Amino acid sequence: MKTLRDIGEDALIERITALVPQAAGPAAGPGDDCAVLDPGPGSSSLQLLKTDALVGGVHFLLEADARAVGWKAVARVVSDFAAMGGRPGHFLITLALPGDTAVQWVEALYQGMGDCLRKHGAVLAGGETSRVPAGSAPVISVAATGMVERERLVLRSGGRPGDVLFVTGTLGGSIEGKHLHFTPRVAEAAWLVAHCKPTAMMDLSDGLAKDLPRLAAASGCGFRIDPAALPVTPGSTAEGAMRDGEDFELLFAMAPETAVFLLDQWAAVFPDLPLTEIGRLAGAGEGDSLSGGWDHFAAC
Amino acid sequence: MKTLRDIGEDALIERITALVPQAAGPAAGPGDDCAVLDPGPGSSSLQLLKTDALVGGVHFLLEADARAVGWKAVARVVSDFAAMGGRPGHFLITLALPGDTAVQWVEALYQGMGDCLRKHGAVLAGGETSRVPAGSAPVISVAATGMVERERLVLRSGGRPGDVLFVTGTLGGSIEGKHLHFTPRVAEAAWLVAHCKPTAMMDLSDGLAKDLPRLAAASGCGFRIDPAALPVTPGSTAEGAMRDGEDFELLFAMAPETAVFLLDQWAAVFPDLPLTEIGRLAGAGEGDSLSGGWDHFAAC
Repeated sequence: MKTLRDIGEDALIERITALVPQAAGPAAGPGDDCAVLDPGPGSSSLQLLKTDALVGGVHFLLEADARAVGWKAVARVVSDFAAMGGRPGHFLITLALPGDTAVQWVEALYQGMGDCLRKHGAVLAGGETSRVPAGSAPVISVAATGMVERERLVLRSGGRPGDVLFVTGTLGGSIEGKHLHFTPRVAEAAWLVAHCKPTAMMDLSDGLAKDLPRLAAASGCGFRIDPAALPVTPGSTAEGAMRDGEDFELLFAMAPETAVFLLDQWAAVFPDLPLTEIGRLAGAGEGDSLSGGWDHFAAC
Repeated sequence: MKTLRDIGEDALIERITALVPQAAGPAAGPGDDCAVLDPGPGSSSLQLLKTDALVGGVHFLLEADARAVGWKAVARVVSDFAAMGGRPGHFLITLALPGDTAVQWVEALYQGMGDCLRKHGAVLAGGETSRVPAGSAPVISVAATGMVERERLVLRSGGRPGDVLFVTGTLGGSIEGKHLHFTPRVAEAAWLVAHCKPTAMMDLSDGLAKDLPRLAAASGCGFRIDPAALPVTPGSTAEGAMRDGEDFELLFAMAPETAVFLLDQWAAVFPDLPLTEIGRLAGAGEGDSLSGGWDHFAAC
């Protein structure tokens, strides 16, 4: 009998999405950072939908600062909206917790969620609390709506061979603390889509080694990167920058002529955040291959 | 140190919702069956948002038919949309599962979800799969959008003293099987809001003893019910009808003059589903009191 650990996350998603009716729309449901719903031609904006879960003992340690965990739970979803060029709107929070969880822990969790919602002009619209049996891991599931101006939407699938690949910030070593305290790149993504729109974009959650092949595949491209060019977080390694995951930086592809403008402007607009050219998209089947990165099931 | 078990679900929700910015809108975020978002005066419909979770060992047995569990996971949310007079739209499914879960089990789960989505004209828009540590309970979290025509929206809060209280179907004994195979009362709710609109409505998920006081409180009312009038599921008891939970029938209040029309019409329109008058809303602080029913934390 095959288990989830045997087949891994990507194969699982492929199997199960074939079993249910799928949304039509500008982004093909599963496979991008968010789902995109079109309210109709009368609307200048599109609605984004996203769900994301944090599991105790997997995505955070049970002894971690609950307020930081709450921040992270919301910030991960905000980061996905940013990666489409959008911003967050209404949140639904589901908590599945053991009955012996301290009320104080849950209150601190919600304070952190509130911090992140307020910072991004988002609000809570509802939620659900449920018990898990004693000894089970707590699960925090966040679902949210977002919005993006129709002409500013960026999918993973618009990249073309020759497009320049960039990452923001530095990669690797997130587990040392950044994964609980990161700033979603909302302002940077908003500036990008307004001034030098990427052809494809996503946020780096599972590690460049896992996420870059996803972006390239969605665009029907291969890729070539220069491993020596990767912006490694101080204290981490090239290997860590490639595979650690939870960087929550932006990875994007951009037409070469737009990239010239970007490189000219970036440092003046965002002086505190590095921007690094790491390689180029290539033709389908061409270029490098990468493996590794975070797989939710194979890793266990 | 106080735990969730000590304070129970309702007190927890009251504490935590004060810590985060809340959505404005026709329904006040937490506290109704769904959140209601108003896209603006140009739109004839309102958007509904709902999240709901199923936990293995709490809401379903691990040896239960996975296809039925999948049906239930989606049907619970559909039932909440129905209770507002609406219908389901786009679904996000989050699975948090141990790595040794059989792929076949997850596929059967998704088949059941697909059955329920197709039956109600709804679609999957995205999702997330994550691992929980070995031995932890599986968690299935469902978030969805729905819609309701602006003039057909029914909240829990519109009831007035003297309104007649009704329930559809029979109550109690859901654990014997109905909880996995119930039919959300979408058609019945749609007919009600179009032809004899209730003043307040909800679906019965935690048992009449828990849910009726919630509806009455949301309406600023008390209530009087006739326990002998309760429609008890064959094989269950009056106590079961009051407290078992997971009936997924409609509970609603209706102005007496509208109720006359309803009683005249119902049997012809829905010959197979009982409709029972169980009592009346009363003035605030008047009438009966009920306790018991399902509490997610106190019950553990």
